[in-house]
Amino acid sequence: MAAHPRFFPGQGPQPLAALLAAAEAQAEGDAERRFSGVAALAEAGPDEIAYLETAKHREALSATRAGAVVLREGEAALLPPGCLGIISAMPALAFARIAAVFHPSPRGMGQRHAAAAIDPSAQIDPSADIGPFAVIGAAAEIGAGCIIHAHAVVGPGVVLGENCTIHPHASISNAICGRGVVLHAGARVGNEGFGFTPTPQGRFVTMPQLGAVLLGDEVEVGANACIDRGALEDTVVGRATRIDNLAQLGHNVRLGQGCVVVAQVGISGSAVLGDWVQVAGQVGIAGHLHIGDRARIGAQSGVIRDVEPGADMLGSPALPVRVKMREIATVQRLAAAGLKTMSKKDN
Amino acid sequence: MAAHPRFFPGQGPQPLAALLAAAEAQAEGDAERRFSGVAALAEAGPDEIAYLETAKHREALSATRAGAVVLREGEAALLPPGCLGIISAMPALAFARIAAVFHPSPRGMGQRHAAAAIDPSAQIDPSADIGPFAVIGAAAEIGAGCIIHAHAVVGPGVVLGENCTIHPHASISNAICGRGVVLHAGARVGNEGFGFTPTPQGRFVTMPQLGAVLLGDEVEVGANACIDRGALEDTVVGRATRIDNLAQLGHNVRLGQGCVVVAQVGISGSAVLGDWVQVAGQVGIAGHLHIGDRARIGAQSGVIRDVEPGADMLGSPALPVRVKMREIATVQRLAAAGLKTMSKKDN
Amino acid sequence: MAAHPRFFPGQGPQPLAALLAAAEAQAEGDAERRFSGVAALAEAGPDEIAYLETAKHREALSATRAGAVVLREGEAALLPPGCLGIISAMPALAFARIAAVFHPSPRGMGQRHAAAAIDPSAQIDPSADIGPFAVIGAAAEIGAGCIIHAHAVVGPGVVLGENCTIHPHASISNAICGRGVVLHAGARVGNEGFGFTPTPQGRFVTMPQLGAVLLGDEVEVGANACIDRGALEDTVVGRATRIDNLAQLGHNVRLGQGCVVVAQVGISGSAVLGDWVQVAGQVGIAGHLHIGDRARIGAQSGVIRDVEPGADMLGSPALPVRVKMREIATVQRLAAAGLKTMSKKDN
Repeated sequence: MAAHPRFFPGQGPQPLAALLAAAEAQAEGDAERRFSGVAALAEAGPDEIAYLETAKHREALSATRAGAVVLREGEAALLPPGCLGIISAMPALAFARIAAVFHPSPRGMGQRHAAAAIDPSAQIDPSADIGPFAVIGAAAEIGAGCIIHAHAVVGPGVVLGENCTIHPHASISNAICGRGVVLHAGARVGNEGFGFTPTPQGRFVTMPQLGAVLLGDEVEVGANACIDRGALEDTVVGRATRIDNLAQLGHNVRLGQGCVVVAQVGISGSAVLGDWVQVAGQVGIAGHLHIGDRARIGAQSGVIRDVEPGADMLGSPALPVRVKMREIATVQRLAAAGLKTMSKKDN
Repeated sequence: MAAHPRFFPGQGPQPLAALLAAAEAQAEGDAERRFSGVAALAEAGPDEIAYLETAKHREALSATRAGAVVLREGEAALLPPGCLGIISAMPALAFARIAAVFHPSPRGMGQRHAAAAIDPSAQIDPSADIGPFAVIGAAAEIGAGCIIHAHAVVGPGVVLGENCTIHPHASISNAICGRGVVLHAGARVGNEGFGFTPTPQGRFVTMPQLGAVLLGDEVEVGANACIDRGALEDTVVGRATRIDNLAQLGHNVRLGQGCVVVAQVGISGSAVLGDWVQVAGQVGIAGHLHIGDRARIGAQSGVIRDVEPGADMLGSPALPVRVKMREIATVQRLAAAGLKTMSKKDN
Repeated sequence: MAAHPRFFPGQGPQPLAALLAAAEAQAEGDAERRFSGVAALAEAGPDEIAYLETAKHREALSATRAGAVVLREGEAALLPPGCLGIISAMPALAFARIAAVFHPSPRGMGQRHAAAAIDPSAQIDPSADIGPFAVIGAAAEIGAGCIIHAHAVVGPGVVLGENCTIHPHASISNAICGRGVVLHAGARVGNEGFGFTPTPQGRFVTMPQLGAVLLGDEVEVGANACIDRGALEDTVVGRATRIDNLAQLGHNVRLGQGCVVVAQVGISGSAVLGDWVQVAGQVGIAGHLHIGDRARIGAQSGVIRDVEPGADMLGSPALPVRVKMREIATVQRLAAAGLKTMSKKDN
């Protein structure tokens, strides 16, 4: 399948020249030839463009009916007859940029729904879109090109840089965002952190949660994900870091730039992650830890100690992947051996 | 306790005949005898109906004060004196249907709140209910009997079949739903998938996420659960599959019919589950895997390989339950033995 | 850093006497001396107050520039010259109360936004605040001082005691709450539980979910957390229990008072937790279990058996911490020994 025609009709057809320019790619085809859209390699038709994702898709390549395929220079020989090669050193990136010609990201066009509740002291760029039932608090600042979708709540004083997108039902308070920040549906940014202290009467009193959330340029926060504001410092997410659905960041957490935090990850309060850290799904990271640049944490791991830069960790408690794999193999071998012994006894 | 009287007053009393007809069950009582409602076996009173859930509740049966109890034919001899037996081969189902006589599922009655934002191009059946502050996008189609609760957002082009219920704060976009689909409060359907590629400048560019979400008849999606739309194909959930709160389905995931996905499960992109698969709480399933029909995945498991039909898996990484149990027992034995050795040394 | 000045400007300066009175603490300073706010020990300035969290912060204490520090009597000797000691037997509590003088919790002031949808039969105390697009259902009761934020949905018949706060996008139905209950953004209380039974035709029919949710005084429910209502009894959360973001409580769950449930925990249906139980992040607790008073469950544990009062559990499946630690050490030792053996073979 290509783009779903009901939801993503696209702006086509587009001439090859425009697509190559957007993709910074080369092809030896007719610059005026027009394509209708992008599609997966196995389903693309003669007027569609696909791409070769990894070497293991080479078989699909030989069978493709795509009109053109984006791939690396050395892979062009694998193209079936009549299929145009679009050459790029970064095929996925080139393909994404070609797709964006057909399906450009929407930008705010200055549409304000009459049923939005906008505080008169908010500063909203005239180009920003504000959807039905959106709420913009006092002294909030909304940059050019922002899209505030239906039901989004932007709290008092919140700053959104240019071209931010707040999807339906997301709420953001006590936060300052750079350019191009995206909050997906139901994301919660700026909540009170989970910090309290007992009283002699057996109640809890909340410790001061008076910090903000700072989101760098192009940070994305997944659907229903939560980022708590800082306690006595700020919670910080660095430039271009992407956080998936249902993830949780506690108060005072600091993520560097370019991190990838997959769905349902939990990062406890005051943990500090460097740049380009990859955290796979359902991982838990304990509070106050330091995770070095470019570390990678495998799915469902439980990190309870600091992690060195570049380390590959796995397991709960998390260990270096090699160590964990050895442990897994050891247990497997011993359990199998135990079974053998038991079988002998049975005889 | 029975139904909470403040929130579920119920439509009673009801005559036995009507209840038996609804339950497709038999009883030798007075067809005109009236019951006031349903209740748990241990708390039901003389005008209430309970049911015998499993054999381990037989003790409670002997002590029940219920006026009638739904149970299997062979269990009728266990009834205390004066308690009417309602005989069914499927007592839980019969009980559910009796309860539905007292507490019928609401259906849309054509009520539209004045403060809903409905695009003029949306096609809404006259019988559908639209609550306060609900948003219905352009060209959306809402079937007969649907209930769109307060604050629900139905995006442009979305199709809802007959008798769907969208609870408060749920949002759905880029999706086509069959009949009787239920989205619980805060569910997020149709979000952009988590797919992107790095640039040479150390940023990420989103890969095309141009597919839809297809929900079969009677699919239910739990509170604050998330289902991302497909990338270049669709995300699909088969008929009657039930997804619990806070679960996450990535882009291109395909679930068969009758699957059960318990709370906080994460299913990564492009994983394919067959029919009648049961996935217990907090399980993670890696991307691109195939899980066979009627497989069962134990709580907190991490599935990293394909699973055969009918298999019972457990652990992280997931293994056949028997293998995993043996490993657990082996480690337990070795740790205990090690302790013994240490104790000897201490002497 | 102190409180973020944009979002938490605070009500200062405040005289020492007022702060000591609020904190029930002692200091030998000038009662008229004024402080501007609270801050972390490492960042506080001469007109700010910090506190000594634990013994491991003593080094920071010697370097602090804070005007005053809250600490225990025996720690006063560690104060740097010129820094005022504020003496309390419970420094964290005293600090929280001092912070609350600068940043008092907001209370409802009787502000009702014109764009709220309030059923005429709802009973709302005149002092309650109702934000834009909030929805209050029929016969709901809202106590004095409550704050119902933008987009909150309070269902029919719901009761909120005095001084409850419902944050944006939270929804609550079928629930009765005591005083001072807080639902953070996007929390879902009162959803239908996940209970159903198969039909001969391969569909599922929902079992009756007719109970309520009872939240005791001062219960707090985190952002996007979910609490399902009971099936044929109630789901109950005891006084002062705190539930963090994205946690899940199934139907009929009962939590005692003073429990702490950290982010992303899942508690399955009908589990019963005593008082003062601590459940760390991402734990799963199976259905129908009993967890004794003051038990502590370590992060990511999977509890599949009843837990004794006061027990410390860890692992999946959960074991007493000492047993689990021994197992971890045993596997580590065997894996290392196996490696040694393999190395010998390689020679």
